[in-house]
Amino acid sequence: MSKLRIGIIGVGGIAQGRHIPAFKALSDDCVITAVSDVNLERAKEVSKTHQIDHVFEDYRDLFKEVDAVCICTPNRFHAEITVAALEAGVHVMCEKPMALSSGECENMLAAAREAKKTLAIAYHYRFMKNSQAAKKLMGQVGTPLVTRVQALRRRKVPGWGVFTNKSLQGGGSLIDYGCHLLDLAIWLMGSPKHISVSGSAYQELSKQPDSINEWGSFDHETFDVDDHVTAYIKFETGASLLLETSWAANILEDTEHLSISGVNGGINVFPLELYTESNGMLLNSQPAWIPGEEDPGLSQAKNFLDACLGRAELVVKPEEALQVSQIIDEIYQSSTN
Amino acid sequence: MSKLRIGIIGVGGIAQGRHIPAFKALSDDCVITAVSDVNLERAKEVSKTHQIDHVFEDYRDLFKEVDAVCICTPNRFHAEITVAALEAGVHVMCEKPMALSSGECENMLAAAREAKKTLAIAYHYRFMKNSQAAKKLMGQVGTPLVTRVQALRRRKVPGWGVFTNKSLQGGGSLIDYGCHLLDLAIWLMGSPKHISVSGSAYQELSKQPDSINEWGSFDHETFDVDDHVTAYIKFETGASLLLETSWAANILEDTEHLSISGVNGGINVFPLELYTESNGMLLNSQPAWIPGEEDPGLSQAKNFLDACLGRAELVVKPEEALQVSQIIDEIYQSSTN
Amino acid sequence: MSKLRIGIIGVGGIAQGRHIPAFKALSDDCVITAVSDVNLERAKEVSKTHQIDHVFEDYRDLFKEVDAVCICTPNRFHAEITVAALEAGVHVMCEKPMALSSGECENMLAAAREAKKTLAIAYHYRFMKNSQAAKKLMGQVGTPLVTRVQALRRRKVPGWGVFTNKSLQGGGSLIDYGCHLLDLAIWLMGSPKHISVSGSAYQELSKQPDSINEWGSFDHETFDVDDHVTAYIKFETGASLLLETSWAANILEDTEHLSISGVNGGINVFPLELYTESNGMLLNSQPAWIPGEEDPGLSQAKNFLDACLGRAELVVKPEEALQVSQIIDEIYQSSTN
Amino acid sequence: MSKLRIGIIGVGGIAQGRHIPAFKALSDDCVITAVSDVNLERAKEVSKTHQIDHVFEDYRDLFKEVDAVCICTPNRFHAEITVAALEAGVHVMCEKPMALSSGECENMLAAAREAKKTLAIAYHYRFMKNSQAAKKLMGQVGTPLVTRVQALRRRKVPGWGVFTNKSLQGGGSLIDYGCHLLDLAIWLMGSPKHISVSGSAYQELSKQPDSINEWGSFDHETFDVDDHVTAYIKFETGASLLLETSWAANILEDTEHLSISGVNGGINVFPLELYTESNGMLLNSQPAWIPGEEDPGLSQAKNFLDACLGRAELVVKPEEALQVSQIIDEIYQSSTN
Amino acid sequence: MSKLRIGIIGVGGIAQGRHIPAFKALSDDCVITAVSDVNLERAKEVSKTHQIDHVFEDYRDLFKEVDAVCICTPNRFHAEITVAALEAGVHVMCEKPMALSSGECENMLAAAREAKKTLAIAYHYRFMKNSQAAKKLMGQVGTPLVTRVQALRRRKVPGWGVFTNKSLQGGGSLIDYGCHLLDLAIWLMGSPKHISVSGSAYQELSKQPDSINEWGSFDHETFDVDDHVTAYIKFETGASLLLETSWAANILEDTEHLSISGVNGGINVFPLELYTESNGMLLNSQPAWIPGEEDPGLSQAKNFLDACLGRAELVVKPEEALQVSQIIDEIYQSSTN
Amino acid sequence: MSKLRIGIIGVGGIAQGRHIPAFKALSDDCVITAVSDVNLERAKEVSKTHQIDHVFEDYRDLFKEVDAVCICTPNRFHAEITVAALEAGVHVMCEKPMALSSGECENMLAAAREAKKTLAIAYHYRFMKNSQAAKKLMGQVGTPLVTRVQALRRRKVPGWGVFTNKSLQGGGSLIDYGCHLLDLAIWLMGSPKHISVSGSAYQELSKQPDSINEWGSFDHETFDVDDHVTAYIKFETGASLLLETSWAANILEDTEHLSISGVNGGINVFPLELYTESNGMLLNSQPAWIPGEEDPGLSQAKNFLDACLGRAELVVKPEEALQVSQIIDEIYQSSTN
Repeated sequence: MSKLRIGIIGVGGIAQGRHIPAFKALSDDCVITAVSDVNLERAKEVSKTHQIDHVFEDYRDLFKEVDAVCICTPNRFHAEITVAALEAGVHVMCEKPMALSSGECENMLAAAREAKKTLAIAYHYRFMKNSQAAKKLMGQVGTPLVTRVQALRRRKVPGWGVFTNKSLQGGGSLIDYGCHLLDLAIWLMGSPKHISVSGSAYQELSKQPDSINEWGSFDHETFDVDDHVTAYIKFETGASLLLETSWAANILEDTEHLSISGVNGGINVFPLELYTESNGMLLNSQPAWIPGEEDPGLSQAKNFLDACLGRAELVVKPEEALQVSQIIDEIYQSSTN
Repeated sequence: MSKLRIGIIGVGGIAQGRHIPAFKALSDDCVITAVSDVNLERAKEVSKTHQIDHVFEDYRDLFKEVDAVCICTPNRFHAEITVAALEAGVHVMCEKPMALSSGECENMLAAAREAKKTLAIAYHYRFMKNSQAAKKLMGQVGTPLVTRVQALRRRKVPGWGVFTNKSLQGGGSLIDYGCHLLDLAIWLMGSPKHISVSGSAYQELSKQPDSINEWGSFDHETFDVDDHVTAYIKFETGASLLLETSWAANILEDTEHLSISGVNGGINVFPLELYTESNGMLLNSQPAWIPGEEDPGLSQAKNFLDACLGRAELVVKPEEALQVSQIIDEIYQSSTN
Repeated sequence: MSKLRIGIIGVGGIAQGRHIPAFKALSDDCVITAVSDVNLERAKEVSKTHQIDHVFEDYRDLFKEVDAVCICTPNRFHAEITVAALEAGVHVMCEKPMALSSGECENMLAAAREAKKTLAIAYHYRFMKNSQAAKKLMGQVGTPLVTRVQALRRRKVPGWGVFTNKSLQGGGSLIDYGCHLLDLAIWLMGSPKHISVSGSAYQELSKQPDSINEWGSFDHETFDVDDHVTAYIKFETGASLLLETSWAANILEDTEHLSISGVNGGINVFPLELYTESNGMLLNSQPAWIPGEEDPGLSQAKNFLDACLGRAELVVKPEEALQVSQIIDEIYQSSTN
Repeated sequence: MSKLRIGIIGVGGIAQGRHIPAFKALSDDCVITAVSDVNLERAKEVSKTHQIDHVFEDYRDLFKEVDAVCICTPNRFHAEITVAALEAGVHVMCEKPMALSSGECENMLAAAREAKKTLAIAYHYRFMKNSQAAKKLMGQVGTPLVTRVQALRRRKVPGWGVFTNKSLQGGGSLIDYGCHLLDLAIWLMGSPKHISVSGSAYQELSKQPDSINEWGSFDHETFDVDDHVTAYIKFETGASLLLETSWAANILEDTEHLSISGVNGGINVFPLELYTESNGMLLNSQPAWIPGEEDPGLSQAKNFLDACLGRAELVVKPEEALQVSQIIDEIYQSSTN
Repeated sequence: MSKLRIGIIGVGGIAQGRHIPAFKALSDDCVITAVSDVNLERAKEVSKTHQIDHVFEDYRDLFKEVDAVCICTPNRFHAEITVAALEAGVHVMCEKPMALSSGECENMLAAAREAKKTLAIAYHYRFMKNSQAAKKLMGQVGTPLVTRVQALRRRKVPGWGVFTNKSLQGGGSLIDYGCHLLDLAIWLMGSPKHISVSGSAYQELSKQPDSINEWGSFDHETFDVDDHVTAYIKFETGASLLLETSWAANILEDTEHLSISGVNGGINVFPLELYTESNGMLLNSQPAWIPGEEDPGLSQAKNFLDACLGRAELVVKPEEALQVSQIIDEIYQSSTN
Repeated sequence: MSKLRIGIIGVGGIAQGRHIPAFKALSDDCVITAVSDVNLERAKEVSKTHQIDHVFEDYRDLFKEVDAVCICTPNRFHAEITVAALEAGVHVMCEKPMALSSGECENMLAAAREAKKTLAIAYHYRFMKNSQAAKKLMGQVGTPLVTRVQALRRRKVPGWGVFTNKSLQGGGSLIDYGCHLLDLAIWLMGSPKHISVSGSAYQELSKQPDSINEWGSFDHETFDVDDHVTAYIKFETGASLLLETSWAANILEDTEHLSISGVNGGINVFPLELYTESNGMLLNSQPAWIPGEEDPGLSQAKNFLDACLGRAELVVKPEEALQVSQIIDEIYQSSTN
């Protein structure tokens, strides 16, 4: 069987740091044949570094050279490029968030169904070893009741790139960072339907002209995204989810927390701990060893290839990514009410 | 000046463990002259142990022997007794929660205003040294944005007394335990008005007939209160509060957490830590020594006496306790929607 | 039903510190009616302190006043008194070790069968919460392969009492201290038959006239027991047990260790930890909470009463204690070969 | 003086990882002039990488180009090659274990005596800094009484190479791994004669088809060596040694433990700690700094060269390695009885 | 032999907390027959509590009833009472510091020599187990070069008693607290002669009217002693000593530190650690167990009685206490230059 | 503007490890145009490695090719070269200590004033992030009272280079190592004038022929510098400073300590901690994040360039380095008195 031809659209940090190395490491199954970027110079450099045959400025020109694309552009272009690729008969792995809004996401989903092609969204936290192991242990938790999600950084607004630009990114800390743990949480919970969302989005700290920031500097005046968000989500199963995410919280230290208390037990993901009852005792358990691939980006790329080749089911289905985008939409709406 | 005569209504654990010792320790200002209890035998024993002159079965008979009462009955009787006492011209310190519902609370407040007598609610967490110190440090936090409250126990439903009886107590983990940290949080935030409440109350775990419980056993069939509650509260200042409380969570360990992130800094109360920026650095600070009284029950009783005697303002004003009860009401209502 | 009448034979430290308080705490089921001791004065004092009706110098005189006895004399008298008591129709709980030799133990066992009375041996380590919980978890360990037992003290020969006197005690660190963990280990392993024993008993350190000892002083010249013992025991199941016990080892710190590696998992008892595989991971688990009685002496007394009253099976059966004594015999024999 | 010419026989992992770098680092005294391997391709690659002049498929052809050889083949070929080399007048450093059986070892020893050439066995644990320092401190331990050896790994059967093949290796965890700490222990004890050995060898865990293994996979059906061994060894000095070694134990964590309790003090080797009495106190001591070479492989190679050149005595004498092989033989025999 | 009759002069905290219990515990050798205090009421209470026969207001009246006295008055009266007691033929144990000035100390010493009676100064730190053990280990330190002494408290001026009154106490933190570790240091160093002293005494912090103090409150205006002192002392052996003592330092935490670096090794006293070289290694050692009496007050009283009874040499000789007072004098003088 | 031309005089370890990389990293402002060394070969190698145009044996020849020099020779040549450079109109950064004696330092200072050129001394500890942050926080400490300085290594005499040669270096541990923390301490204190110095310099340990040394070996006979120094310095502000420095102390572990207790608070520099009072509490604070450059050598070079270019004030002024040298002189003098 011939190898899947991969194209990379947008060759910034995430493409160079995660996706290109991953596809190159999977050279038994694929080969990167083309890259495109609105910054043609950058695309050329990347093609030279990685010995990629074709370079384009316009992503439309790339489709003919590939069987699948990986979309790494600013969020604003996710929907448009995805739909175009699918219409061109090309499989798509699109960086998270799926798109700027849930409406766009629905268009992407429709295009994928129409094209009968694979559409994956790069929520790579699901491919971490702790996440995969937690998923296997959910049976011991029982029906989830309460889920806690914290994706918090202390004074670390990303001062580079387009992160603080709402029209290009659609939002800040929630759509860029918190979305990962929100997606992971709902997947571990078994993807229940949400029935209500209440939320608050803040930007007060970053709007202060002289506040300290560890990750570079940005223009406080043009900053127009959220740097801190809280939300509360109810599901039709009765479960509730307490969410907090921030780039710039005034807290002790950066925190990634995801825990679920169910009817029978509890689980914490970072680090992985299981709280159960057994033989009349309460037990705490931790993995001494988890098998598998350390690099979630590699597992993610492999799952995408396997899905394209009909060898496996997608781990991150587009319907699931759509729900994450719906919740993000509803949080932002709730915040302005 | 003659000493304030104190009556104790209901002489169960909280009266014997906290309030009677506190008032006895303040013997310069007060004397316990009477006790009453529907269980007359218990009242007699307590009066003998503590050398209290008068013993009654009916609290109404007690009013004539006292200037102030401390109400330690099940929650259901708080409102009725408080109103009766105030109408009899007697100051009242009532155990938390203020009453079964905010409607009852409003009646109590009206009675206090009418009688021009002191009405205090025993939210004693406010008198802890960490709480008092945190209140002084709130200026360095700036306008609060996000507040996190966790009052969580692992598998410790109180199996004794009336705690699992909804008609007597009005609820479970939230109205009995979580109310303390909720009250403390709102006070530290500066008592802003709340504008929306969403919540979920659970009882699944305690309804399971064979689940393990560390604090005694109870009847799983008649259990009709919440053992786990989550909620999300928005305030008119824009602040939001994430609340979780439980008697029986499937978590690693019991947790009392209250932290606030504001525009300028952050604070954690247990243990007390302050997160600020200063001289272009981010600083973490902890108290090496906090002066003051270790026993919050003693400080609370002293503040009540001082208020009755016109020497100080109440720390826990009834209007503030009313707001806590309103929020509890709204959480329970939200949960059933 | 009338209460079981208990007699205590030998009222030294172990009687006063463990057994008398335990039987007194179980006053619903029993009453201590008599004590005896070759030191009559001591017996009288104890009877006065604990309000016990009958006091005797000769244990034979005590049998008529009791239904059951607890034997707390030096090891040398265990067999003689036990047989006499059983012949007098009295139930027996005898302190560990069962007797000086396995031959004596067999006589005791025969007498118990003949008399159809209960004969319990006070290996109270089995009643510790960790031990009881470990027993429940052995199913996850699978067939035991390797058992490690360490009952080690650093320079703490008991300098008081008769501990260093071989004719009264039958041995030193092994028969007095190591026997507990050896008994516990074999019980957790499921009481397999042993097929070979190799051992070494030492007394070099205690024979040195000027060595340091933390627990009082003793006569180095008359010291004639072991202060350090190693042994290796094979069982017909294929399992092997590595044993080390000492009163006076040159080691970092006192150590009580008992762990078992089985075909499926492993267990450690102090502290209780379980090592298993599950869902393709290796897991470590610890109890967050174990229910039950903290005082093993109380549980032990209760089990004895329940067995006498036909309400429960003995936890420590005399056949099992016999095996421990057989192994001790074989270790001492192996050492002198 | 001209440099010693070194030949390497068998150029697998241990040759490339330890011995070749060591001899190259000692270029003042020696030069590697030849390599041989049954896999001639591999030998050629190694010779190219390390610029070694001569390459052979048959080790016999190599002798003429060298003064000394280092034998790094599977255990099965140790005896044959050693004897051939010595008969060819070539010094030998042979990897551990010395050979498959003590009978073979005796032949090797006889050949060395006959040839008057140096025969070293690569028990490199003796050259670790902690080992060398411990040897110097043994005087403070006094006559050894009890020695404990644990060389334990949790679920780490080496799934590569020939480790699980009995006919090539002679055994599993004991002959491959435990032999190191057994050798080190006996050397620290002063090389006393052993008088009895009892042991048990297990393979139950590795024979289970679906058990988890951290270090690669192997064929559970053809696995025919031990993965877990216990043993008990008595010496004519009265000392006893408790031994446990495993590739795949169900335990908390990998453990390398070697400690000795003597008449005057105790010692632990990993980490190095000394337990003594002094001035009427019990003291614990640890090295703050130990001088010397960090890499034991380098020290081992240097000692071999020095011995060949008559400049120093061998640290690991073949008579000592023979005793280790005798004990291993006796453990395996004991296990099958 | 009849028991030594002891009198206590001054029955404040140090008498009641340390000396009276100590002499009572040594009832084989002594009996407290009399107490005196300028506060006669307090003396009567103490005599009743401890069943002491004679009570006096004037210490002169007490001498006839005793063989030895223990002087527990403010520092100002140490010299006068000591001289009077010795002239009355009574042995003396005097609390530290020996007196207000070295001139007074010399008078006391002269009186003791004249009277041929025992004169002990209560530097009880020397009787701590760590101190006694350190003294035994000084041989491994070799000739002392550098000694570091820190007796530091953070914001803990003793607000009670006469501690802040210079005319009664002669000084503050140095004469009251630092003197202990200074005395201990010089004793461990072998009591070398000092040849130069430079020092600084501070009171700035305590003179601030509103500074925080953990140990009660005092009058900032009348405060006229040192609350922080540094000094540097050279000895004729070449050794130097860096001294810091404080009641009220702005430091992380209270610290008692005494360490000595010598030509061969180093020692730290709290906790006890020894730093040596041995067998070409650097070693750190700590006691695992130190024998002896835990209560230094008891050992101190015993040594005084033994000295009075001719059974032992004094541990704290008055000549040594004189040197401490000389150094204190010189520090205060240096500070005002 | 053209770039500053830099010359490096003396190209040993400190030049290659710190200064050359720093100036190369600041290539916007400067270029290294010349190097000189009495070891011309070494100079040539360095010039090749770093592509530097001019190489000289005699430093005088270098001046014509540069605008500024960095002097990295043994201490003995600092004064001579500095004066020559300044007279040649060249800016100077000279390694610490400024010179062998304060007299030489004064000549250097005079030459700088005369030449109106920049003269910086490379006390790079001042450019550490902790030092810079501490300087900003000194306001919260208030007037300094007590300063503690420890620059201590355990048995680590630098056995290489010229460190143990008094005629080339002027001294040992104090002039080479302790000078850094002494300089930093006085700067943080606000550069008060010192009014008295007392000190002791030791070399006993290093003069012992067989003492252990971790950092290489040296000739114990020719060793003629201090390996351990203590000192006590008083300032006209009333502050005192306790100083200890050593290359070879018999202590637990290497220690760099600098703390200051002032009238209002205290500060520790390694790690950075602040001790204050606030709102009636005692607070401890630590930085969670300090901005700025991690490499103090880079900040130091940048400050020198900025000063040469008139863009900034020198951080380490020559007058301040002179005071450090004066104090070192006085310590050595005090030691010999």
